[in-house]
Amino acid sequence: MPADDAPKTAAREGGLTYASAGVDIAAGDRFAHSLGALMRRTHGPRVIPNPGGFAGLLRLDYNEQLFRHNYKDPVLVACTDGVGTKIKLATDLAKFDTIGIDLVAMSVNDLIVQGAEPLMFLDYVAVHAVEQHVLGPILAGVAKGCEIAKCALIGGETAEMNDLYKPGEFDLAGFAVGVVELSRATDTTRVEPGDVVLGLASSGVHSNGYSLVRRIIEHAGIDLLSIDPELDPDRTVGEVLLEPTRVYVQPIVRTLRAYKVKKVITGMAHITGGGLAGNLERALHPRVDAVLNRDAWDVPPVFRYLQKHGGVDAAEMDKVFNMGIGYCLIVRPTFAASVARRLTRFGETVHTLGTITKGSGAVRMK
Amino acid sequence: MPADDAPKTAAREGGLTYASAGVDIAAGDRFAHSLGALMRRTHGPRVIPNPGGFAGLLRLDYNEQLFRHNYKDPVLVACTDGVGTKIKLATDLAKFDTIGIDLVAMSVNDLIVQGAEPLMFLDYVAVHAVEQHVLGPILAGVAKGCEIAKCALIGGETAEMNDLYKPGEFDLAGFAVGVVELSRATDTTRVEPGDVVLGLASSGVHSNGYSLVRRIIEHAGIDLLSIDPELDPDRTVGEVLLEPTRVYVQPIVRTLRAYKVKKVITGMAHITGGGLAGNLERALHPRVDAVLNRDAWDVPPVFRYLQKHGGVDAAEMDKVFNMGIGYCLIVRPTFAASVARRLTRFGETVHTLGTITKGSGAVRMK
Repeated sequence: MPADDAPKTAAREGGLTYASAGVDIAAGDRFAHSLGALMRRTHGPRVIPNPGGFAGLLRLDYNEQLFRHNYKDPVLVACTDGVGTKIKLATDLAKFDTIGIDLVAMSVNDLIVQGAEPLMFLDYVAVHAVEQHVLGPILAGVAKGCEIAKCALIGGETAEMNDLYKPGEFDLAGFAVGVVELSRATDTTRVEPGDVVLGLASSGVHSNGYSLVRRIIEHAGIDLLSIDPELDPDRTVGEVLLEPTRVYVQPIVRTLRAYKVKKVITGMAHITGGGLAGNLERALHPRVDAVLNRDAWDVPPVFRYLQKHGGVDAAEMDKVFNMGIGYCLIVRPTFAASVARRLTRFGETVHTLGTITKGSGAVRMK
Repeated sequence: MPADDAPKTAAREGGLTYASAGVDIAAGDRFAHSLGALMRRTHGPRVIPNPGGFAGLLRLDYNEQLFRHNYKDPVLVACTDGVGTKIKLATDLAKFDTIGIDLVAMSVNDLIVQGAEPLMFLDYVAVHAVEQHVLGPILAGVAKGCEIAKCALIGGETAEMNDLYKPGEFDLAGFAVGVVELSRATDTTRVEPGDVVLGLASSGVHSNGYSLVRRIIEHAGIDLLSIDPELDPDRTVGEVLLEPTRVYVQPIVRTLRAYKVKKVITGMAHITGGGLAGNLERALHPRVDAVLNRDAWDVPPVFRYLQKHGGVDAAEMDKVFNMGIGYCLIVRPTFAASVARRLTRFGETVHTLGTITKGSGAVRMK
């Protein structure tokens, strides 16, 4: 119920009610209930049903297999992230079925950087009012993202706040928990000169830089529903810009498992706000540099399109966008080719970006 | 930088930049950095430092003590919650130092209902712009809440979205993870006729029903900065309404530990939206009722004040607010007095609310 209706309702009923304050508890409950099936799709045997409860339960040591065979000193890894103003683009286009994939991707891609395997995910959705046609697709996207990442969607919160969010507006936050064996957790000190930097192709803009994306679109007066062959001959500008963030979990987790004894992967980076250099830097220690070759990959059309229409300079593009590389691995040189082959087999597009040299913790592009 | 400045900046620099789109990455980074000390205050030896990383790491089996002595079949429990439109009240009063305690309380109080011990917490803060004088107190409150709950603040996200949030507005979401031994997790089927229902006093309105609270204040034309002796002779109306949510973690966790062999606590409930009946119901199975005595506790002045000024009817009040009881325990009758004494010693105000009878899963007030 819109907040504007409230005083009328209150007057009719002789006193204020929660519904007159714009909050429909029953609609919220019905919606929460409808999520059950979506969530169960993502549940393995580790998840303990908790009907009516507000908490998600995941049995860590299912059948005592987990620790006996894999974990001696388990470390929980947790991340949280949102999808920034990509939300506004989804709202403008009234297309809500993929933003939930972005939400999951942003957190789980951060999680695997630590060497962790995602276990569970929770979402926070804040809305003006509970509208099934908006929330349904959003949460279906979240469930889809969890299926891709093979983690359990075990909880969430739908907050109805009609005086903080305008009609049709919403915000999303995601939260992921994973586990990694302490001795296999990513450790920047293991990176050595000679290691090779591999880059995995992004699926598009992912979920960073959308304040600038939207400013460019507005500035250039671009119709999101138009098709520009320069960008993509088959999809509208809006569709290209809403392409969901690639979830790198399964290829990375499976590759880490394959090399877990030799530990040939010495560092990883999820390329988000700050760009390739800003994020890969976090994987380095102060005595090494990463020297990357700009020609190692082609910058996808979407970034050239945004740069051109916004008149954005190259350095700014590099700082804000992933420019085509969504995830990086630093790999011992003798294993670089085999890791690249494996990732390719798992569906990734792999580029050899450069190498690690002695240095001072910087990423240098040449 | 306000979004309005953006076109001017863009024109001056000849192209669009991320800063011209209203996002100040450097200010965000500086703020993130300043959080380090706050977060470290909440860290025990289990937390693994991860400077520059986007993920929080917590060693589950620190020194192999946890599992050897306490956990054979650990279950991870995770919750997420926000603080609803209590945020708007904090904004109206420009008082930001306690809303973070509310945020932690909402999630960790849900977590302990499952019998779990909170381990770690993460926050998501979405703002129009990074403003230290607002974010600083908010995050200090989050850290304070984590200290009270004895859980580690191991991560968070500050999202700057100037086109989703108006200047001065923000939203908060919290995520908590805990652990419980499977055999000691709360199990509604253990509730039996004869069990006693204990209620712990709330500290005030907690974090539910604020859309209605604010509607009442507006409707009655109440000045939040005024003092009404009927409500509280020493604090302004705003201060009373912003009183942070009580964190029940330590008293409950310590009580559960004291009775962990006998398992005399058969159910618990955190009283949030839906009120005492709506939440206590979740702790029951379909063959028992909880019969509560309305005279077992005095409804605090703040609820009588809100009811009077909003002309809200009693049933609606019961459905929306905690009415003075923030947390319930269902306890074996022979242990009710000793559990109550223990909780009192831990600082709680305990009321014997009623008993469990044969029934159909309902909460009945008499």
